[in-house]
Amino acid sequence: MWRAVALSIFPEMFPGPLAMSLAGRALREGTWSIDAIDIRGFARDRHGSVDDTPFGGGAGMVMRPDVLSDAIQASRLPGAPAIYLSPRGVPLTQARVRELAAGPGVTLVCGRFEGIDERVIEAHGLEEVSVGDFVLSGGEIAALALLDACVRLLPGVMGTAQSLAEESFEDGLLEYPLYTRPATWTGPDGGERAVPEALQSGHHAKIAAWRRSMAEEITRRRRPDLWDRYDARRKEREIEKKGTTR
Amino acid sequence: MWRAVALSIFPEMFPGPLAMSLAGRALREGTWSIDAIDIRGFARDRHGSVDDTPFGGGAGMVMRPDVLSDAIQASRLPGAPAIYLSPRGVPLTQARVRELAAGPGVTLVCGRFEGIDERVIEAHGLEEVSVGDFVLSGGEIAALALLDACVRLLPGVMGTAQSLAEESFEDGLLEYPLYTRPATWTGPDGGERAVPEALQSGHHAKIAAWRRSMAEEITRRRRPDLWDRYDARRKEREIEKKGTTR
Repeated sequence: MWRAVALSIFPEMFPGPLAMSLAGRALREGTWSIDAIDIRGFARDRHGSVDDTPFGGGAGMVMRPDVLSDAIQASRLPGAPAIYLSPRGVPLTQARVRELAAGPGVTLVCGRFEGIDERVIEAHGLEEVSVGDFVLSGGEIAALALLDACVRLLPGVMGTAQSLAEESFEDGLLEYPLYTRPATWTGPDGGERAVPEALQSGHHAKIAAWRRSMAEEITRRRRPDLWDRYDARRKEREIEKKGTTR
Repeated sequence: MWRAVALSIFPEMFPGPLAMSLAGRALREGTWSIDAIDIRGFARDRHGSVDDTPFGGGAGMVMRPDVLSDAIQASRLPGAPAIYLSPRGVPLTQARVRELAAGPGVTLVCGRFEGIDERVIEAHGLEEVSVGDFVLSGGEIAALALLDACVRLLPGVMGTAQSLAEESFEDGLLEYPLYTRPATWTGPDGGERAVPEALQSGHHAKIAAWRRSMAEEITRRRRPDLWDRYDARRKEREIEKKGTTR
């Protein structure tokens, strides 16, 4: 069983949306588990204080190192990565998600207020991970996103392996456009929209070529950063190929 | 009131975690509202079918254009952006979050299965937005993240404006490290960890300089992409300055 521990002052946010759909079924079937730990349970006073004002001044509050450290110490999964979700972190990638899903599980520290005391990150060797270049009111929704991404990769959760192999990022490209019935659809503007001919051809090589070229075009247009990496790898492979045929 | 509409086959996922904490209070106070629309309510058969197999073959299912289009047509907020959450989208940034929060609201289309029929994106002019380079089991948690990021910026939701001004991305840098009491803390390894001297100095210029240099160092080390943009802007400003003093 893949295990998740989430530390939060809002433990009731877990499993939240992950109690439903595929992740919810996998949770009920014991494919994975989640323990939501209330950080306030480790407070040292009867008010349950977990935060204090920042050294050096400024607005907002910071989570105290002592209380949070006790919570981590008592709850973290042995032998599994412990991640602090923060916009300051290294951006989460599908490659990292695959690694996490292949491991025993993950401990997730969800900050609130301005953030957590830096010394806790250091002392516990927390990995700082960001789900995107925007700021949330806390780490909980980021943790739910990370968990959802991992859980869908666990054996038996998704239907087929192929469905995973052809999606965005698996080959360094964004996914090609998708179409289903009806083959001709009249949109809200009254315009008729047909499914591209190539996809209706039944010709496997033609379909694969169309999908590849669309995936390349979308990636080049929307994500020049991904495109540059993909293009560099493609050129390397071409040079290698030439090398072996000579 | 800032309005959100979320279209999903799991409408019960909303407001979910956003019913709690700051976002939940703001929801109860009428600062924002959310309508979760069940896409299945627009199905054309009594089984509530919303998906079908993809043209061109491949694993998984695709959301039908006709059913989803009817749901969008009936529910989208007039005069507000309509966003389809997808790993193929343009990455969400704090700048876009600020724009959305300053507007009347947002309509969010949450896909499931392999994705939605491309013609719906085209016909409704949906903006494709990604919350990160990883794949979720559906758009719902991405939608919750986008909403949380927007709602915390609405007037009155967060305590102070300063707290927003000094956080990650607001000046192109990741945030500096935070510290709170106790000033000296003994970590789980028995090591004593003190708050950096500069922050305890009470000297405002020294504190600001320390924070700036730490923010720069963290950004340079973790996010060379953000650093390059920040550095280029900084050099431009320096050239402008020289120009005016001559």
